[in-house]
Amino acid sequence: MAEKITPRATDYPQWYQDVVQRAGLAENSDVRGCMVIKPHGYAVWERMRNALDRMFKETGHENAYFPIFIPKSFLAREEEMAEGFAKECAVVTHYRLKAVPGQGLQVDPSAKLEEELIVRPTSETIIWNTYKNWIQSHRDLPLLINQWANVVRWEMRTRLFLRTAEFLWQEGHTAHASQEEAEQETRTMLEVYRRFAEEWMAVPVITGRKSEGQKFPGAVYTLCIEAMMQDRRALQAGTSHFLGQNFAKAFEVTYQDQQGKRVHPWATSWGVSTRLVGALVMTHSDDQGLVLPPRLAPIHVVIVPIYKTPEERSVVVSAAHQLADAVRALPRSDWTNYDALAVKVDDREQYAPGYKFNEWETRGVPIRVELGPRDLAQKACVLARRDIPGKEAKIMGVPLDAAPARIMDLLQAIQRDLLERSRKFRAANSYEVNTYDDFKKKLEEPGGFLWAHWDGTRETEDRIAEETKATIRCIPFDQKPEAGACIVTGKPSAGRVLFAKAY
Amino acid sequence: MAEKITPRATDYPQWYQDVVQRAGLAENSDVRGCMVIKPHGYAVWERMRNALDRMFKETGHENAYFPIFIPKSFLAREEEMAEGFAKECAVVTHYRLKAVPGQGLQVDPSAKLEEELIVRPTSETIIWNTYKNWIQSHRDLPLLINQWANVVRWEMRTRLFLRTAEFLWQEGHTAHASQEEAEQETRTMLEVYRRFAEEWMAVPVITGRKSEGQKFPGAVYTLCIEAMMQDRRALQAGTSHFLGQNFAKAFEVTYQDQQGKRVHPWATSWGVSTRLVGALVMTHSDDQGLVLPPRLAPIHVVIVPIYKTPEERSVVVSAAHQLADAVRALPRSDWTNYDALAVKVDDREQYAPGYKFNEWETRGVPIRVELGPRDLAQKACVLARRDIPGKEAKIMGVPLDAAPARIMDLLQAIQRDLLERSRKFRAANSYEVNTYDDFKKKLEEPGGFLWAHWDGTRETEDRIAEETKATIRCIPFDQKPEAGACIVTGKPSAGRVLFAKAY
Repeated sequence: MAEKITPRATDYPQWYQDVVQRAGLAENSDVRGCMVIKPHGYAVWERMRNALDRMFKETGHENAYFPIFIPKSFLAREEEMAEGFAKECAVVTHYRLKAVPGQGLQVDPSAKLEEELIVRPTSETIIWNTYKNWIQSHRDLPLLINQWANVVRWEMRTRLFLRTAEFLWQEGHTAHASQEEAEQETRTMLEVYRRFAEEWMAVPVITGRKSEGQKFPGAVYTLCIEAMMQDRRALQAGTSHFLGQNFAKAFEVTYQDQQGKRVHPWATSWGVSTRLVGALVMTHSDDQGLVLPPRLAPIHVVIVPIYKTPEERSVVVSAAHQLADAVRALPRSDWTNYDALAVKVDDREQYAPGYKFNEWETRGVPIRVELGPRDLAQKACVLARRDIPGKEAKIMGVPLDAAPARIMDLLQAIQRDLLERSRKFRAANSYEVNTYDDFKKKLEEPGGFLWAHWDGTRETEDRIAEETKATIRCIPFDQKPEAGACIVTGKPSAGRVLFAKAY
Repeated sequence: MAEKITPRATDYPQWYQDVVQRAGLAENSDVRGCMVIKPHGYAVWERMRNALDRMFKETGHENAYFPIFIPKSFLAREEEMAEGFAKECAVVTHYRLKAVPGQGLQVDPSAKLEEELIVRPTSETIIWNTYKNWIQSHRDLPLLINQWANVVRWEMRTRLFLRTAEFLWQEGHTAHASQEEAEQETRTMLEVYRRFAEEWMAVPVITGRKSEGQKFPGAVYTLCIEAMMQDRRALQAGTSHFLGQNFAKAFEVTYQDQQGKRVHPWATSWGVSTRLVGALVMTHSDDQGLVLPPRLAPIHVVIVPIYKTPEERSVVVSAAHQLADAVRALPRSDWTNYDALAVKVDDREQYAPGYKFNEWETRGVPIRVELGPRDLAQKACVLARRDIPGKEAKIMGVPLDAAPARIMDLLQAIQRDLLERSRKFRAANSYEVNTYDDFKKKLEEPGGFLWAHWDGTRETEDRIAEETKATIRCIPFDQKPEAGACIVTGKPSAGRVLFAKAY
């Protein structure tokens, strides 16, 4: 077996790296800043994608696909966007290589593009350039489109899933006849993200609005969901932007309204990415490895047959497969996105049960079933929960015929408990602070979410970020009205906002 | 309504363009050679992807994701591949733009990459570079990986779906301990493609092996499925390559076999792309627009309520929704990949029924249900099949309570009939030819699949291609042994191969 996972308490970043690697989720590639998403990591992302995709469709959206390349001039059209993304663009300048004797393959200088192409960092520009033709009449609205795609933002300091030069994501791009409807869409999609984070990922999130300093380049405002990782840092897990008429104007998109007047539509965009896989790891995993919420687990149950003799093996392995079939035959439901429960029988001969237990624990399988001759004699098995550490995880003597239903109940309990545990962790690490001194002290030790009064200015926001590395994560939707004084300037504030160090 | 679709007989390429556009499948983008896949086209691709993905998983494959960028030196390592793809590579040379006063955004010359990156045209090189670390022991084999991704091949003459600079595809990349096992995998995956083409797309295909002149750069040999379009041209719909040890050697991948010796693994790769959407259109559609095989249709059934008065409208629309719910509630099965049947009630008030009939016909919905007050009075409805032209498409007086089951039967009948019709079309347009003169004559008029003797040399193959524009589509698996003489050189041949003009 590979070496042990570095404990969280010893070195949190190394722990994260170890968990991701040992669970077989991803690894760094030889291409600068780009990761390889390994089968187990991709399987988690697939489950995320399937659940989100259904929620998008249930809220009336359709998928489409737009070019990966964006002409440089498109990016330049929306000023804030150009400024926001220019520094991290992969630029295609040529369209051919040629073999040069003695030098191998070289860029062919005669195949230079007239206009450089940017590998999309986000697709507002190319999509709004297309919408110009799609939106002619008020009957064409609302236009509710989503795209699943890869994007590239050249990052200098990368970390698997959390920050990579290329990542996978979805980006919604909608157009509406009224400002009100577009703003409603912005909130609706944030609510989809909140539900997904809490109900599927078991990650509790704070919902709110970004400050000016943190909003998306090109947006009028940005809404977000923010989660707390186990090192008490914040992670932005999804954003939904109200874009006003910025892109409609930049790309000259107008339509004929019911009165026959040409007017600009209103826009939103919203996205989540493979970063969510990182958030999942950092929220639930422990020093033994990955812990997965059952609704997103690629394997729900692993059955490990235990035996000594070949005779025992044959009986136990056959019983294990029977149980597996019974679990797979449970009725499908929304809870697993209509997939059958995924059950693995680990009947590999070359490994001992202890090795197998350890391996599946590392990979985050929510339930392990142990099945030996003694259990079989009593027509029973042992269930073990991944989310509970040590011996308490075990449920002994579960009758085989009751096991499938019990497993389903247990999966649902694990899903609930993970969310509950994360909520408690967040509550235990959130503080209301009233002075800048207390803010700075708490931020360093123990760290966490700091709720503080702020005077609402960009200047103060920037000063705090510079002096402490804490940023405003959001101005929460459910802010309680409370008269107070900004912790830095003493100026009046009507309610607390959320500060934290963030990924 | 937009103008009429150009008839196939008048101008086949224009007919294709019209069908794709009018059905809302795709359009050209403002980025050279890149298409926008519109919601209806993407929905067809999604259904293809879901069906294929399940077949890949059932044959033991897992999905993963590898970087979009390939260092130039990787491409250079496998000579045939470098030669095959160098001329159509999008090359990233810089990683930053900057704003230059008076000139807008410009490429930042200080951000030049040390080594250029190629936007992947196919991923053998980056994947085998990764496999170097994954394959250490015979226990790591077989390695059965698939990737869903976008790829870029710079094309000068493009056509929606059939040939575009960027397209979506899947690429399987497997590694095996023995040549025999890798060759078996190559055949297994071709069989998956054949089944998908025939059972899901209702497109009959010829399976076989490519000649040397037509194989994939870097492969030892290439297997393929070839379909006949309605203009009697061939379309290569999927390929499966036996790569031998070419990539293992180029990337120095070795593992320890059971005897403790370091040896190279054996490789395969196989892929199908969004080109299949083009194949689907060109196989089944007619002068009224798109015809879709029900198993891949994003909407299976459209119900059009017919009424004159508001009172009638309210009763008929409500009955339409009731029927829709009953159809959606039919048991889910493999036949639709466990999706519920997709039913649309078109209760838009601003359009007349005739307009709606026409629109859904253009978009290829397999079954239309007409429901008016007179039908309702008899507790019945009218069903109309998209695949049969004119009045014969209609089935009158179907009792409402029997309609859901009848619809399911009808969908299955349409699926079967489309395949059967395509088989007959292919048979009617295939010829055994025995002289080069007859070959050239038949190829021009009427055109089709020509089965002819060939001496097996590259030279003759190239000469025929140059003189006639026909290529060897494949050496069929089920070639009947038949002694003959090459139509060009008269040299002996042991069986006929398939020639055609191709997309």
